[in-house]
Amino acid sequence: MRIPLQARYSDYDSRGHVNNAVYLTYFEIGRVYAWLNAVGHSDPNFIIAEARITYRSPAMLGEPLAIEVTTSEIRSKAWVWSYRIVDERDDRLIAEGATTQVMYDYTAHKSVPIPDALRAALERI
Amino acid sequence: MRIPLQARYSDYDSRGHVNNAVYLTYFEIGRVYAWLNAVGHSDPNFIIAEARITYRSPAMLGEPLAIEVTTSEIRSKAWVWSYRIVDERDDRLIAEGATTQVMYDYTAHKSVPIPDALRAALERI
Amino acid sequence: MRIPLQARYSDYDSRGHVNNAVYLTYFEIGRVYAWLNAVGHSDPNFIIAEARITYRSPAMLGEPLAIEVTTSEIRSKAWVWSYRIVDERDDRLIAEGATTQVMYDYTAHKSVPIPDALRAALERI
Amino acid sequence: MRIPLQARYSDYDSRGHVNNAVYLTYFEIGRVYAWLNAVGHSDPNFIIAEARITYRSPAMLGEPLAIEVTTSEIRSKAWVWSYRIVDERDDRLIAEGATTQVMYDYTAHKSVPIPDALRAALERI
Repeated sequence: MRIPLQARYSDYDSRGHVNNAVYLTYFEIGRVYAWLNAVGHSDPNFIIAEARITYRSPAMLGEPLAIEVTTSEIRSKAWVWSYRIVDERDDRLIAEGATTQVMYDYTAHKSVPIPDALRAALERI
Repeated sequence: MRIPLQARYSDYDSRGHVNNAVYLTYFEIGRVYAWLNAVGHSDPNFIIAEARITYRSPAMLGEPLAIEVTTSEIRSKAWVWSYRIVDERDDRLIAEGATTQVMYDYTAHKSVPIPDALRAALERI
Repeated sequence: MRIPLQARYSDYDSRGHVNNAVYLTYFEIGRVYAWLNAVGHSDPNFIIAEARITYRSPAMLGEPLAIEVTTSEIRSKAWVWSYRIVDERDDRLIAEGATTQVMYDYTAHKSVPIPDALRAALERI
Repeated sequence: MRIPLQARYSDYDSRGHVNNAVYLTYFEIGRVYAWLNAVGHSDPNFIIAEARITYRSPAMLGEPLAIEVTTSEIRSKAWVWSYRIVDERDDRLIAEGATTQVMYDYTAHKSVPIPDALRAALERI
């Protein structure tokens, strides 16, 4: 899935680049969008266990950005989403990374298996 | 009350100034600190009704900042906190403003009178 | 001008509402969009002198938001932009406010008159 | 080096936890502090090439947080800083991670070797 990003002036730091931490917020925009579109409006009952990001090329003010999200791995209780942030005009790669999500029961406070319906939904991302 | 601010590199925008919206976050740091110190750890059951800010002088990277909070008006169901953001070295005024808080009952969804104990606490700020 | 806002999960605070400071960032999204569309890609050589905001109704997670920007006053060296943040589905008013911009010469470090071409552009917003 | 963090109400998301992206901002606070203290006020002429973070335990509103920064690897043109975010009261680990910095010549637009003086300074972190 590719989602256009509405970059904000305040995302850019004093070098004129998107600040390094903001990319994780962009990942989150992609993640929320993917969840809503593939899974629906049910509560996202997972926790983020890990995140990693590689910065490829600075994003400058005025450049139109988009994020791509793909489910790259599904295990029994966890899955990985991979992200690519690109310049929408020429697909220049700006940053890429991944987050690992663990299915979580917020009442029992423990990780739980991914239900089959969710597994099928994640495969569509 | 004067509270030192821990400015963050990401608070500064591409002109090298603290971004205009961040000052409201600084107000919030002052507000939370004032509440904890004058009122205590009870839940802050108020809503923000209004905010205004006047920008006096840009804050540049590396300048040590502090915020001052004062209760400037107490009405029956609302009060005003006034803020001054200054350079800690010479008290240069960077921004000043105010927020109006309304005492709120989150269960009944309506404004309520300020209790006497809170009124006394607000007078100490 | 009305611009759809791409709200971010991190815009919402622990009460599930858009944080009060984020509205100034939304104002900025509207302002940048208005400038690019009415004036063009020239450098926005103004400073923000004042901002004020009135909170009308909390914005909750999942509600689609938009911002409206209008030039509400043009003086010799300054102008006022007014903003309304609404729920896109029913135009429910969430917050409204204004910012005052002063035309600024960053080289001479002083305010300067608004050029005629910019004045005409501002009247289109 | 251990640096107390001034958490902000807006750092917490609608689950009442510090938002996952904010930890990279906390890393940056630690990084800037470490640079100023070990290297001084010279311009930080490096770029961030990679970041990774593992979330160990959620940070809740009101918990006092600190960040620890250590130089964990120095190569010819790059070095790694490792971070631990802890609850100041009992050292409970909240998140840990690392960033890789590449020494960079912003004029020539290329990576360059780490100067000896900087190498010595990094070893003190």
